[in-house]
Amino acid sequence: MPFISLLTDFGLEDPYAGIMKGVILSALPEVSIVDLSHHVDPQDLKAAAFLIDASYSWFPKKTVHVIVIDPGVGSSRAIVAMAAAGHFFLAPDNGVLTRVLENATVDALVRVENPHYFIHPVSRTFHGRDIFAPVAAYMAGGKELSNLGPPMPPSELARLELPVPHLSDADSNAPALVGEVVAIDRFGNLITNLEEKRLQQFAPARDLSGLCIDIGGHVIRGLSFAYQSVSPGELLALIGSRGFLEISVNEGNAGRFCRTEKGDCVRVSRLDSS
Amino acid sequence: MPFISLLTDFGLEDPYAGIMKGVILSALPEVSIVDLSHHVDPQDLKAAAFLIDASYSWFPKKTVHVIVIDPGVGSSRAIVAMAAAGHFFLAPDNGVLTRVLENATVDALVRVENPHYFIHPVSRTFHGRDIFAPVAAYMAGGKELSNLGPPMPPSELARLELPVPHLSDADSNAPALVGEVVAIDRFGNLITNLEEKRLQQFAPARDLSGLCIDIGGHVIRGLSFAYQSVSPGELLALIGSRGFLEISVNEGNAGRFCRTEKGDCVRVSRLDSS
Amino acid sequence: MPFISLLTDFGLEDPYAGIMKGVILSALPEVSIVDLSHHVDPQDLKAAAFLIDASYSWFPKKTVHVIVIDPGVGSSRAIVAMAAAGHFFLAPDNGVLTRVLENATVDALVRVENPHYFIHPVSRTFHGRDIFAPVAAYMAGGKELSNLGPPMPPSELARLELPVPHLSDADSNAPALVGEVVAIDRFGNLITNLEEKRLQQFAPARDLSGLCIDIGGHVIRGLSFAYQSVSPGELLALIGSRGFLEISVNEGNAGRFCRTEKGDCVRVSRLDSS
Repeated sequence: MPFISLLTDFGLEDPYAGIMKGVILSALPEVSIVDLSHHVDPQDLKAAAFLIDASYSWFPKKTVHVIVIDPGVGSSRAIVAMAAAGHFFLAPDNGVLTRVLENATVDALVRVENPHYFIHPVSRTFHGRDIFAPVAAYMAGGKELSNLGPPMPPSELARLELPVPHLSDADSNAPALVGEVVAIDRFGNLITNLEEKRLQQFAPARDLSGLCIDIGGHVIRGLSFAYQSVSPGELLALIGSRGFLEISVNEGNAGRFCRTEKGDCVRVSRLDSS
Repeated sequence: MPFISLLTDFGLEDPYAGIMKGVILSALPEVSIVDLSHHVDPQDLKAAAFLIDASYSWFPKKTVHVIVIDPGVGSSRAIVAMAAAGHFFLAPDNGVLTRVLENATVDALVRVENPHYFIHPVSRTFHGRDIFAPVAAYMAGGKELSNLGPPMPPSELARLELPVPHLSDADSNAPALVGEVVAIDRFGNLITNLEEKRLQQFAPARDLSGLCIDIGGHVIRGLSFAYQSVSPGELLALIGSRGFLEISVNEGNAGRFCRTEKGDCVRVSRLDSS
Repeated sequence: MPFISLLTDFGLEDPYAGIMKGVILSALPEVSIVDLSHHVDPQDLKAAAFLIDASYSWFPKKTVHVIVIDPGVGSSRAIVAMAAAGHFFLAPDNGVLTRVLENATVDALVRVENPHYFIHPVSRTFHGRDIFAPVAAYMAGGKELSNLGPPMPPSELARLELPVPHLSDADSNAPALVGEVVAIDRFGNLITNLEEKRLQQFAPARDLSGLCIDIGGHVIRGLSFAYQSVSPGELLALIGSRGFLEISVNEGNAGRFCRTEKGDCVRVSRLDSS
């Protein structure tokens, strides 16, 4: 059974996502389409890059993941179709696949250029309807990527400069690992770019309970296992379901509690050195 | 054909609902998944308890209704799988099934404890993905609840203290039936916890036109049959589609008109005694 | 394979859309249901009339398009089932089909009156659940419209007075074509009611580059091919994906830039006469 997931910044007020589904179903009636999200902030490529990487592997193998965050629609930016990690991806070549590429091996990659698979006339403003939707249906039908256009070396793909955690005061006796908040979810959980294994490398004796987290002056000593490890209303840090450090308030909203915004800095130090 | 409905407080901005669908479809590709709502206010168990009870019976028999409003995720709270009224329910044991239990007979009930049906490692913060989704797929596949864990008597299920209508001034010659607003919908309709049959018992000669409704000082004499029974912009009361007293403004918004909030009190008296 | 699209003003916070799907799937388990939008502003028939006309043709032929923007629910307004342009439509007879009727030939039209196809008791406030959903399932199952009720001449359908572009100062040497903004999308694109062919008729030598657009005092000279034709942050006009004049800001939000609201006037003049 063919599957397509959709990740866009279209929202659900306008008919854009619905129209894409209409086009897909016209070409491949038996496909099952899942909305990953249509609420990426308009043109926020960084957020989309983290979101697709955290999500795709939970779908059935061979799912076609269609990503339409596309500030360059109508320009000369390419559209790419990629096979990696047992899944397919269809996206503008604007860096939105950066995180996926860091964590998966590319098995096939082509520029989507063959107009035979497009809807004509191709509009200048809605490639989601005229290119992404019919090409996604083609891909979900199990056909060859090579028909879509010329092969492309993965090294030529556009990459975003994503925030990378770095060591601060590395040579002092109180070094810190500095990351940032890459997403704040509906519950106010602060999702950082600090991966569990990176924290383990940094922690004394690889023990996360030996870490101290500072977010905007709020200090958290040690990591918790679950929200209920602290009292309601209290701040905590834990390894979230994406495998990254998250900061939360039990039965509360850490984003409001700490007045945090996306991009704010998170500083991790060692308890024994502080 | 298997069906699953989803009721969560995840919202649609984050990928949580989409990821749950990916996991479900990985296990049961042919299932049809319906979003009941993902916009329950975070951790609002009362609202969810009313919502699932008002909704589940409209789905095909044997639908698995998955409810993930789960402030206790990662704690020792149980997860339960239940068969009742021809439907299946999968929910945390936190009282969210309270209203369903008031109105339906339980045919089977188990604690979901068998890790064979979970995704491992089970995270401490996203049981929707690691437990609810794979177990829902198992249940929708028509398998035995008894494999999921030990049976549990319905009397042991957690219950919410939901607002219950009560008589006020019962011994006076002007008694009142006092309920409250349990939901305000997108149109500003005020949905109360006063059921039609309860109103009939209270009304003179079981005639609802003999009732007088007071909501925050706004007084409505008698019940209407439809919104158009009054002029545009006017307040009215009627029995809504859920079988409960609702207060509306024809072509308007009663919530804004009456400045009502969830939990506000609604007072019903008899016209002949006022 | 049967398809149903849903266009309502129900929003997604309440269970109304989910309940409609439950009813549809109970009657026709194999149907594929697509949300066109549930976020039409409450009771905004004009917006819905434009939206359904811009969208329906992108769906598979024989899709049943169900439109529940229905301020008259419970009154004597009719419900109509229509076959036109290879698609089916089910809607209240309140003018929401006005734009579809301007652009398509009606093949069959009936008043939906046969209670055999309704869910009983029919509520006075939620015909979406009690009439539209079961009748849509019936229609998507490929059955005869004529069983639903008596035929109706298309001329008797209610029509909205939609904003129509008009010539201003037609007899002067500086005539203007005056339209209005009928929708503002999530990106802040201003979608007007000025169709490409209407602009071509008005333009000198049918050349759209010879036009000058005035929106709230902001003047745009000529039309662009794509957003990137101007610098980021700059205003532009182009023919959007619906075939109408749209006003945008490259990588920005024209609605906020021009402080435009739905219904605001757009004035097109000829460059050579200004």
